[in-house]
Amino acid sequence: MDRKKLFNVLKTDITRINQALEGNLTSHVQMISEVGRYILLSGGKRIRPLLFLLSARMCGCQEDHLPDISTVFEYLHAATLLHDDVVDAATVRRGLSSANTIWGNQAVILVGDFLLSKALNIAVATNQIRVMQVLAQTTIQMAEGEILQLIYTGNLDKTEADYFEVITRKTAILMSAACQIGAILGGAPRAQEMALKDFGLNLGITFQIVDDILDYTGNVEELGKPVGNDLKEGKITLPLIHALSQAEPQDRQALLALAGSTDQDEIARELRPILEKYGSLDHARQQAQFYTAKAQEFLQIFPPSGEKSIFTEITNYLVERTC
Amino acid sequence: MDRKKLFNVLKTDITRINQALEGNLTSHVQMISEVGRYILLSGGKRIRPLLFLLSARMCGCQEDHLPDISTVFEYLHAATLLHDDVVDAATVRRGLSSANTIWGNQAVILVGDFLLSKALNIAVATNQIRVMQVLAQTTIQMAEGEILQLIYTGNLDKTEADYFEVITRKTAILMSAACQIGAILGGAPRAQEMALKDFGLNLGITFQIVDDILDYTGNVEELGKPVGNDLKEGKITLPLIHALSQAEPQDRQALLALAGSTDQDEIARELRPILEKYGSLDHARQQAQFYTAKAQEFLQIFPPSGEKSIFTEITNYLVERTC
Repeated sequence: MDRKKLFNVLKTDITRINQALEGNLTSHVQMISEVGRYILLSGGKRIRPLLFLLSARMCGCQEDHLPDISTVFEYLHAATLLHDDVVDAATVRRGLSSANTIWGNQAVILVGDFLLSKALNIAVATNQIRVMQVLAQTTIQMAEGEILQLIYTGNLDKTEADYFEVITRKTAILMSAACQIGAILGGAPRAQEMALKDFGLNLGITFQIVDDILDYTGNVEELGKPVGNDLKEGKITLPLIHALSQAEPQDRQALLALAGSTDQDEIARELRPILEKYGSLDHARQQAQFYTAKAQEFLQIFPPSGEKSIFTEITNYLVERTC
Repeated sequence: MDRKKLFNVLKTDITRINQALEGNLTSHVQMISEVGRYILLSGGKRIRPLLFLLSARMCGCQEDHLPDISTVFEYLHAATLLHDDVVDAATVRRGLSSANTIWGNQAVILVGDFLLSKALNIAVATNQIRVMQVLAQTTIQMAEGEILQLIYTGNLDKTEADYFEVITRKTAILMSAACQIGAILGGAPRAQEMALKDFGLNLGITFQIVDDILDYTGNVEELGKPVGNDLKEGKITLPLIHALSQAEPQDRQALLALAGSTDQDEIARELRPILEKYGSLDHARQQAQFYTAKAQEFLQIFPPSGEKSIFTEITNYLVERTC
């Protein structure tokens, strides 16, 4: 299944997710709806709501309100994007001005809080305490991941293990929760629930590794942000960590100098050849493929189904994507 | 019962609350514990955990883990204090440097997110979906209250109704939730649960009105922040709203000029006489007494008990407090 065909299969769901995202974004405070619409409807792949929808259906849940519940995961994600943009002093997201440059940091912090609360409100309507347990654990790990990332900013001594801890918490845990909660609402047996939890976790790790590779190799128009942006913000990701651990003294010096640079052209022009020389981008790609394969393994206990096929296609797409 | 006697009665509970606040503040990320301890253990009356504890006990719940659960309300409160301080660019809280001046806005935003998540984690351990429903509704209204307050910043056209909407959401709803959730865990009949919910709401409104009066009349040492701080931050509170609605043209002009001032000495020296002239501080005090009386009315359906007496004393203390 090529990317276009996959998108066609998911089109109806994405439309229903988008409708629910907009429909649930009501507040009698107009600014909340404005900022919320801006961050939520300015793009995004809807991976998290889709993971939830497909998991729930694969486990036998066919209820009409699934798209509504799926917004939990996009609202939580949007809340972290808003707080991230303030923390990173970002000016651009998805090719548009970041919300904080339009409405100011103050509004964006508080609307982030609102979206987190909105997610809880929608989740609590499932009436299932286990759903809330998973979500509460998820939000705490996400916050820890963001804080670790902040603490590690600009720190070139961090290891691959540190990197994996950060991306697991800041990215993979939410995707894992989307899958696990889908299984819970589908009434899946414990083994299937745990399999979907692990599937989402490994898929999430892949997702973030690929994001971090694309930050070096992607196309500025497709990415909606400049190449080398992570390093400019002091985020030391897998390719650079690998290169630093492998590089000969002279190249290591060059890497350390470039890591302190805020000149994105220089980063794109001079850093990438060193990453290529030490196979660091390939190393990261191999890691992404390793976690994709792991994710796919966790699907094995499920009987064949349309959702299972789509999950396999999504994992293949996520590791091969260019934006 | 005078203040000292009231404090003595509550001393054991406050000690147990403080122990639970510190004990639950574990994270393998050291900075989280540091910032968390700073904001949580640098003072505070523990009103919210006490409201919860007393409500739960008054409704017959005597479980040992009540102090643990009571931390939910202090963690939620601390999370909003951290985000507030960033939003207000505050430099001082409770007589100490605000956390954002020590750890920076970035860390403080994210530790705020952590504390909110921590509160959810503790609450979810009650295994009661109704507890989570009340909390989810509470956090959404708190976020809306903070956003309304931000939108109304410096706006001198706002009415008393606008003021009450903001303080209800930003302050009273959490105190109301503390009381209501105490009742839920105590297995109280619906009428008692609703009475405690309304008791907490009215007590919370009183609490905030008194806070706002003290911002004009309080003692800098006792308050831990300069007099006139709210106005400096553009917060237009009940005394000023009243004075603006009553003042003759000349005084109104003076008030408008002072409202734009950032000179706290000037605010303290020149504004207060105008507030006194129009009885605006007395008006606010009468409002605080009105809501105290309303709060006390909601206690009437409860049979006499130690907790009920303490609740009455707390309402009397809160309306008469000087810091």
